[in-house]
Amino acid sequence: MADSQELLLQQIKEQGELVRKLKAAKESSEKIKEEVAKLLALKAQLAPEDAAPQKFILKTPKGTRDYTPQQMTIRNEVLQKIITVFKRHGAECIDTPVFELKEVLTGKYGEDSKLIYDLKDQGGEILSLRYDLTVPLARYLAMSKINTLKRYHIAKVYRRDNPAMTRGRYREFYQCDFDIAGQYDPMVPDAECLRVVSEILDTLDIGRYVLKVNHRRLLDGMFEACGVPADNFRATCSTVDKLDKLSWDEVRTEMINEKGVTPEAADKIGEYVRLNGGTELVDKLLKDEKLSKTKAAVEGLDGIKLLLHYCELFGIKDKILFDLSLARGLDYYTGVIYEAVLTQPIKVGNEDQTVGSIAGGGRYDNLVGMFDSKKKQVPCVGVSVGVERVFSVLEARAAAGALRVRTSDVDVYVASAQKNFLDERMKICAELWSAGIKTEQSYKKNPKMLNQLQHCEEAGIPLCVVLGEDELRRGVVKVRDVGARREQDVPRDKLVDELTARIANLNTQLDGNK
Amino acid sequence: MADSQELLLQQIKEQGELVRKLKAAKESSEKIKEEVAKLLALKAQLAPEDAAPQKFILKTPKGTRDYTPQQMTIRNEVLQKIITVFKRHGAECIDTPVFELKEVLTGKYGEDSKLIYDLKDQGGEILSLRYDLTVPLARYLAMSKINTLKRYHIAKVYRRDNPAMTRGRYREFYQCDFDIAGQYDPMVPDAECLRVVSEILDTLDIGRYVLKVNHRRLLDGMFEACGVPADNFRATCSTVDKLDKLSWDEVRTEMINEKGVTPEAADKIGEYVRLNGGTELVDKLLKDEKLSKTKAAVEGLDGIKLLLHYCELFGIKDKILFDLSLARGLDYYTGVIYEAVLTQPIKVGNEDQTVGSIAGGGRYDNLVGMFDSKKKQVPCVGVSVGVERVFSVLEARAAAGALRVRTSDVDVYVASAQKNFLDERMKICAELWSAGIKTEQSYKKNPKMLNQLQHCEEAGIPLCVVLGEDELRRGVVKVRDVGARREQDVPRDKLVDELTARIANLNTQLDGNK
Repeated sequence: MADSQELLLQQIKEQGELVRKLKAAKESSEKIKEEVAKLLALKAQLAPEDAAPQKFILKTPKGTRDYTPQQMTIRNEVLQKIITVFKRHGAECIDTPVFELKEVLTGKYGEDSKLIYDLKDQGGEILSLRYDLTVPLARYLAMSKINTLKRYHIAKVYRRDNPAMTRGRYREFYQCDFDIAGQYDPMVPDAECLRVVSEILDTLDIGRYVLKVNHRRLLDGMFEACGVPADNFRATCSTVDKLDKLSWDEVRTEMINEKGVTPEAADKIGEYVRLNGGTELVDKLLKDEKLSKTKAAVEGLDGIKLLLHYCELFGIKDKILFDLSLARGLDYYTGVIYEAVLTQPIKVGNEDQTVGSIAGGGRYDNLVGMFDSKKKQVPCVGVSVGVERVFSVLEARAAAGALRVRTSDVDVYVASAQKNFLDERMKICAELWSAGIKTEQSYKKNPKMLNQLQHCEEAGIPLCVVLGEDELRRGVVKVRDVGARREQDVPRDKLVDELTARIANLNTQLDGNK
Repeated sequence: MADSQELLLQQIKEQGELVRKLKAAKESSEKIKEEVAKLLALKAQLAPEDAAPQKFILKTPKGTRDYTPQQMTIRNEVLQKIITVFKRHGAECIDTPVFELKEVLTGKYGEDSKLIYDLKDQGGEILSLRYDLTVPLARYLAMSKINTLKRYHIAKVYRRDNPAMTRGRYREFYQCDFDIAGQYDPMVPDAECLRVVSEILDTLDIGRYVLKVNHRRLLDGMFEACGVPADNFRATCSTVDKLDKLSWDEVRTEMINEKGVTPEAADKIGEYVRLNGGTELVDKLLKDEKLSKTKAAVEGLDGIKLLLHYCELFGIKDKILFDLSLARGLDYYTGVIYEAVLTQPIKVGNEDQTVGSIAGGGRYDNLVGMFDSKKKQVPCVGVSVGVERVFSVLEARAAAGALRVRTSDVDVYVASAQKNFLDERMKICAELWSAGIKTEQSYKKNPKMLNQLQHCEEAGIPLCVVLGEDELRRGVVKVRDVGARREQDVPRDKLVDELTARIANLNTQLDGNK
């Protein structure tokens, strides 16, 4: 049975290939139709239940991907740049497990909780994959009874979303988080988070951006001033959050029909959320008839005013936009909220790619307390950089040939033009490795000279040691400059010194070109 | 119902706050008792099932741990050293998703399959967490139709084991894998894997070690020569694998009672598996009456002989031990198998810690073919370094004070002795960050001088900029050498230059001390 099934699958495959060939060869449509009919007949023979296990498709899980060496090279360079910024601000590194007790995640993400990956109950604890790095941080602080920490955390998080992978959105994706925990003076750490994002976006050099800011207290005050009942703030807020994807009319309809906001309240909200600006807007709103009478709104506005002042001192005021339509969905924010948005589409080859939001964050003063048995609070503020979109843009640039990526760092290739030089090649490799020189050779006993040189050129290896009988007799080896295609005899016992000097020289040139 | 529950929780919270306030205000104990009673009455109204979430224990999942900044610093340094070795050998980096389709893992791990973590069926694909990095590599090669690759992969893997965490064994742990895929000449890539392990153990400097080698074909030939039926090889092999934990007598009993090996066959096996040595042992066994007549055994012995020759050329022969008791449990090995073992207990403070096996691997020529629809093979050989044990040893050394770890790289702290200097501090921080100088400051408006200096000393920050009214008036700031406790006036507009020069100088000294 299994054998006849396999035969059938083989026939289907061959018939499919035949059809493809006919199409490629632009055969008559009659001929093609005939062969397609045969293919369908063969497929019809697959019994549904037998077909199932055979249908095993070789793939990664939905919404995930492998990273090729080229992608990893890009990724590691991007992460290294981000880490450099984090460290410049004195952040320490932590890591937490990829899964948490399910209870840890429960009640932290509002509507999005349905996107959490749960593990199967295999007779132990009930676990879920982490959804972000913020809740694990809060759990860590509460569990370890830590009151102050400036940390970064770079790790993958998991969301059972239906992501647009072409735009760099996945179910498994990296977050790069920077957070400051501790009881400090208002807006001082909050402003530093914005400075950190600004340094990261500058160093990644992926185009112009704006750092939008708003304040949860101002949003609450605004809803209150517009006549939304207090128990409806969160729901209304999550509708406002959709303004980056929906028009105001659509958001207004959702508010009225789904969130029970009155049309009058919705229209008043509509007037506020179209406002954005700088300190002058804060001053104007502080004099606004309705907001100036609402305690929460005044608190939020005072906070934004102080934040804008600190951003000026930090030299990033021209990047900041106070935007009343910024809401952010997550439940746990309590103060300032941020979002970094690229303002230009990115040129990838001849195409324009829109990236949009690239970092976000805010203040969450009550999250740690949710894990503490005595509800002890540790105020926190932080920001998360969504690097997958950066990776996608750079990968597309690499694919379009606009970015050259070397996936290995090898400096020296040890080759031989003649047979029976494997032993000698191995000895030289060992010598070079021991001297710390990045070296490789062919794993074949008698590789062809052309193939070896081709590998050097393809892999961008700058130097090649070429062994030969004649040279060996004279106590020398040839060192080849792969790019210039120039060779030079070097005494065998001076080889390490010569290569070390040449590599140092190459690196100096590279640094000079940067 | 949910609302009344929420109301109750709110009442409990408010009542709790009232009690705390009364206690803080040192109210009469009668008054406090009265309010505490009300609090308890409210709590009693919580139905048991509703109260349950209150019993939540704050912990990481069984067999996992958080990494503190100190642990991460150690971990990142170890991984960096390992990556340096991998890159010296020209390995490229890849990454794969943390979970795979369950089918990908099925049938690859023999008895150990029960330790795989499955994800809950949430109405999509059936997924499992990766158990190692080898099977995902094979899946990746087959899926991407790659025939040759030298790659490293550093990532966490997951096993539902009952690990001894004190000895550095966890359910979530890092593997550092180096593998060479491709159709090459015998033992050339295999020998390089041993050289890679040797370079890693040398650079980690955690004591003397031996690289044990054996060959699956030799094991098969040995079982055949001793009269074990062919369909019993794998089961017998997995019993031999226990020789590092059990005595020969125990292994013999298991073979006879559980694996159906005859006592005579077991005794013959017992004679072989106590043998270990070098090339002279290979030569002796090639003349062994039974083995020399068994094709598989001769193939295995020829392989080992060639491997030992290449290891000599690679300068690592003194580290290699050919050991007939080495079996390794995993099903997928087909040729050479390795294991690196530390031969001395490690001194941690006053205690000796036994580490044992620290790396392992081997050749698996049939694994990629299991994923290919045409069963196309891609021969592979590789090695996996178990770094958790290295981390554990180094963490224990750090805890014992034998290893000093700095968790942040900050070079400059910006401080002020007087009030109202936050704005000025912020401006200077921004200037230093823009110059690429690793800088931090207090997040308090008016921090105490003593606290600021104390932070510098505790965090090992070498330089401190001290702002003051008098200095500001004179257009200078003080730069303090934290270690030497010496201060010097520096013109405000020369600050960046001065600090850059001092930091370069500090780094030169550090490099000199290494």
